[in-house]
Amino acid sequence: MQIISAPTEMQAFADDARRTGPTIAFIPTMGFLHEGHLSLVREGCRHGDDIVVSIFVNPAQFGPGEDLDTYPRALEADCEKAAAAGATVVFAPSREDLYGDAYQTYVTLEKLPQHLCGLSRPVFFRGVATVVTKLFNIVKPHVAVFGEKDYQQLLVVRRMVQDLNFNIRIIGGSIVREADGLAMSSRNSYLSPDERRRALCLFQSLQKAEEMVRSGVREAEALIQTARDIISRHPDADIDYIEIFDPETIDNLKRIEGPARMALAVKIGKTRLIDNILLTP
Amino acid sequence: MQIISAPTEMQAFADDARRTGPTIAFIPTMGFLHEGHLSLVREGCRHGDDIVVSIFVNPAQFGPGEDLDTYPRALEADCEKAAAAGATVVFAPSREDLYGDAYQTYVTLEKLPQHLCGLSRPVFFRGVATVVTKLFNIVKPHVAVFGEKDYQQLLVVRRMVQDLNFNIRIIGGSIVREADGLAMSSRNSYLSPDERRRALCLFQSLQKAEEMVRSGVREAEALIQTARDIISRHPDADIDYIEIFDPETIDNLKRIEGPARMALAVKIGKTRLIDNILLTP
Repeated sequence: MQIISAPTEMQAFADDARRTGPTIAFIPTMGFLHEGHLSLVREGCRHGDDIVVSIFVNPAQFGPGEDLDTYPRALEADCEKAAAAGATVVFAPSREDLYGDAYQTYVTLEKLPQHLCGLSRPVFFRGVATVVTKLFNIVKPHVAVFGEKDYQQLLVVRRMVQDLNFNIRIIGGSIVREADGLAMSSRNSYLSPDERRRALCLFQSLQKAEEMVRSGVREAEALIQTARDIISRHPDADIDYIEIFDPETIDNLKRIEGPARMALAVKIGKTRLIDNILLTP
Repeated sequence: MQIISAPTEMQAFADDARRTGPTIAFIPTMGFLHEGHLSLVREGCRHGDDIVVSIFVNPAQFGPGEDLDTYPRALEADCEKAAAAGATVVFAPSREDLYGDAYQTYVTLEKLPQHLCGLSRPVFFRGVATVVTKLFNIVKPHVAVFGEKDYQQLLVVRRMVQDLNFNIRIIGGSIVREADGLAMSSRNSYLSPDERRRALCLFQSLQKAEEMVRSGVREAEALIQTARDIISRHPDADIDYIEIFDPETIDNLKRIEGPARMALAVKIGKTRLIDNILLTP
């Protein structure tokens, strides 16, 4: 497996692939890889020949007071894990490589970020759309894989790809969970043992909603209130949002008449966690 | 010469070129081609094998009350002129092709638009950066040519290309003028014969500044005041701005110590015209 850090070298690699034939599958990450990321790498292997994993903690998607400086990093271990999962290239640029002097260009979406995570993290999706645009221009993939755990991000990327005419196929990868159901996240490493136990309330509330839908409940408000009750049992769990929405448009739903997504963001102590589930009546 | 209107067809053409070898040179235009555009097409021919001219009146760069609906159009004549100048492809998408339902993604620059034309046309550079990003993703050029008449636009495109990691070489093409010195512009077609004569005051004031610099004047304010006087002789000439600035950073200059750009925007009747010149001490 090759490790590339210079954007121009990555572009030369991509141009060469596009000249000679291999399909490039791309999995952008912020590193500190876990099974969730690795499942996306394996998904990439099903769609491409050159499997490029980027590792870059993107400053543009962190707001003031967020965890940019403490975000966990482990480049060497990441490269080993990526290679074992099938990556053929790790692209790991420096911050200076991607945001040099006088940097000033951003990609913004007008509507999709006005929901869910976008409301409590106002620069987040601008940062995501910007770095993904940059990485697409550097890696020049045919296919890119994004995890469904960041469900709103997946929608933002799909919309941006369509709006800006990237001809890149976007594939969503399923959420991977720990044995007890906690969605895998690099941020889980922040949790104390006690917080780790309490963090399970996110998945428990989603599971409960799934169960209620299966038993005939259709009112979104009833599902949300039950989730709220489950999470509120924990005194240090601070709910940012719990919402049920159309999986394509992200518009809130009052009743579950067709496929719906339920998503939530909860702070356990100082750690903000997100999770979501597909509800089908 | 080929005429392509579907973005996906243009992309297939570009992918094929990138697989088989030809260099793609790209000249984006809003059509109603004049000698200025055609000089850019000829410049493109010096740098590429496939010479792609796009013709698209981009709604995103027009503000409310501007001339989107009256902007002159002449697709058939444009195709003939482009072919004669060396274009091998005209890409002419429809508005629906580029801005479909639920369109919501924009590329913005934070600093460069806070000058000159960006101040009186607040959505202009957002529209330019957005459509150029889209066109770059569709045409996938190796080289793109932009006219120096829209000097600030050229700087915005260069900055955007660097910031978003497009590996596209941007070439600036010199201003082409009518016999009497008026910079060529599709908007010159709006001018009445009387306005056409008065419009010459833009170039006259730039020429005067050049002359003054040659004779030793270094104070920007003196050059600007003289230009202001020349233009103000015409009662229906309404100055938007006259500025002298660093050709790279666009920061205003007080003295001409090295290469400087002088640029102006003036409304002649209802028609807003721009022009600029390089001043070298």
